[in-house]
Amino acid sequence: MSLSKKMSRIDSSPIRRAFELASKIENPINFSIGQPHFPCPQNIVEAMKKALDNGKTSYTLTAGIPELREAMANKYRTENSISYATAERVLVTSGISSSLFLLFNALVDPDDECLVISPYFLMYPSMLGFYGAKVTTLDQNFTPEMVSKLKDRKFKLIIFSSPSNPTGKILSKTQLTALAELAESTGAHLISDEIYELFDYDNKFISVGSFYEKTITLSGFSKTYNMTGLRLSTILAPQEIITALTTLQQYTVVCAPAPVQWAGLEALKTDMSSYIQDYREKRDYVYDNLKDHYEVEKSDGAFYFFLKVPIRDEDFVNKAVEKEKLILVPGYIFCEDHNHVRLSFASEWDSLKKGIAALQRLA
Amino acid sequence: MSLSKKMSRIDSSPIRRAFELASKIENPINFSIGQPHFPCPQNIVEAMKKALDNGKTSYTLTAGIPELREAMANKYRTENSISYATAERVLVTSGISSSLFLLFNALVDPDDECLVISPYFLMYPSMLGFYGAKVTTLDQNFTPEMVSKLKDRKFKLIIFSSPSNPTGKILSKTQLTALAELAESTGAHLISDEIYELFDYDNKFISVGSFYEKTITLSGFSKTYNMTGLRLSTILAPQEIITALTTLQQYTVVCAPAPVQWAGLEALKTDMSSYIQDYREKRDYVYDNLKDHYEVEKSDGAFYFFLKVPIRDEDFVNKAVEKEKLILVPGYIFCEDHNHVRLSFASEWDSLKKGIAALQRLA
Repeated sequence: MSLSKKMSRIDSSPIRRAFELASKIENPINFSIGQPHFPCPQNIVEAMKKALDNGKTSYTLTAGIPELREAMANKYRTENSISYATAERVLVTSGISSSLFLLFNALVDPDDECLVISPYFLMYPSMLGFYGAKVTTLDQNFTPEMVSKLKDRKFKLIIFSSPSNPTGKILSKTQLTALAELAESTGAHLISDEIYELFDYDNKFISVGSFYEKTITLSGFSKTYNMTGLRLSTILAPQEIITALTTLQQYTVVCAPAPVQWAGLEALKTDMSSYIQDYREKRDYVYDNLKDHYEVEKSDGAFYFFLKVPIRDEDFVNKAVEKEKLILVPGYIFCEDHNHVRLSFASEWDSLKKGIAALQRLA
Repeated sequence: MSLSKKMSRIDSSPIRRAFELASKIENPINFSIGQPHFPCPQNIVEAMKKALDNGKTSYTLTAGIPELREAMANKYRTENSISYATAERVLVTSGISSSLFLLFNALVDPDDECLVISPYFLMYPSMLGFYGAKVTTLDQNFTPEMVSKLKDRKFKLIIFSSPSNPTGKILSKTQLTALAELAESTGAHLISDEIYELFDYDNKFISVGSFYEKTITLSGFSKTYNMTGLRLSTILAPQEIITALTTLQQYTVVCAPAPVQWAGLEALKTDMSSYIQDYREKRDYVYDNLKDHYEVEKSDGAFYFFLKVPIRDEDFVNKAVEKEKLILVPGYIFCEDHNHVRLSFASEWDSLKKGIAALQRLA
């Protein structure tokens, strides 16, 4: 069977391998999960059922239902301080992965240079590489001076997630400003993946789009409301980009699932603060109980820690499974070295405490 | 704003332009619609609501829920006479457009030659062209002799829909055999898009997969059950292809919407024969009332006719809108000439009769 040449550039995600590993172990402590441990709030589920009762099972407009585009524009203006946001600049699509696929196809040619902040969400370099682009990385603790050294490079695209998957790091205003200036001076598209924006434990999060109008802002419903299986996200971008992405969406995704778009409207009205408070306490608990055992930066957001481990990451992951039934994700899929593991604290207290005790024993 | 070079190869679909045109006219007769006029059956809607009540809002396994893969394998064995179908050979994905996107990315390299049966679903040549492939067409009324003349060509992929969008044509066993032999001798992947399989008015439909095991069979729920906005489809293919597509799906679609997969299970149990009977009568009505006014082949299936018109297709479409408020789709997006229009008879009787009378006046 002959496959395309591109297919040799990707392989099965190690996160999924962790998932399969977990399914084979009895009563594992699973710290590998990339989704909240709480259920999708009931009001959102009811809104989706109501949409189904109202016959919302047919194609919607390609760019999404006008009601959700308008509500998202309003959210961007009021919650993200993005004053120029309008419904026309919003595309509704089917999860951040679909957003990335649309963007990489619409913006990137083979051999284009792209800058990715590291550690990174594994899909950025994987899919950029799949499409033949060349990836340069810059550590998340970069200074403006480090960015200005890149001024003479020809970047087509700059991408990062803040809060970060896998580290929980939230980029500072100084850092975001440096990236926006680099985008402006090199003509690169600046993509800000803000899917974890609500998981912001110390009120540090800023949308780069609030001060740089050419930003391409990615927002998701999956993580905030545990709608990971419902496939809904939005892109806010300059009008020309939205027009191009909408054309490409006609030929690929077609539209985000219709009843889910109506559920998204309800999701935006849902108060998630008690869930965030729970995760803030878990973030603190994990840090307080691991900081004397591992080299680790305190996570600002999302629900991850990126721990430096004393042995090679894959060996550590195997040891954790064998000795403690603890599932982790090896760090090499998020960065260029083999010295870290990713830990998700999106779990119940009981399981979290057991896992942290296990990690103390493994140090 | 700099876009990728690929983006210059596609433009906004004229089908959507027809859609927008329809939204601007008061009380149009809309024959441009590519979806059934009946609602999604209530038992399917209820199954989806039940899945939501059962908390099915999280990611599923990448390849789909095992229950649906198993049910589809069973459907392929019993309804399509595809004896080798197993759950492991089935990938659940998010609509035929997503299936095509996965396949074209996984199988086709720039400059690969692809054979498309014409008239064709506009996405085949559009997306193959987008990815840099070269498209050759072969008229749907081809003979085995015409196919054997192509034996020395190096095709990477052969694709067709049967029943056809836009003509309703169902390929004969002789024709399918010729295509399978061409695929076998040239090493091409054979893709059979069977989304309209249930709309088969004279019991002519055969799955090429029933006698050629390397076939890649595409099946959808959208048209059969009017679930176009729910985004669900499946691919049956050799194991190596399914493995590759599943890897690519991890990085793009991630999974089909979770509650919709459960609704798909219920859909498979739904008797659609009364709906099909209604469309059979409409097919006959359209043919009987147009055959003396237009050059037209009797449609075997789907819910389309492809009419030869006396003037250039776009002029005819404009004239139909202006004189009769009748919305049609110009034929050039489905074939290489400007001599046809596509008519969808997925409509209520009242509207259908008005539209056919208008077409008689326009002849």
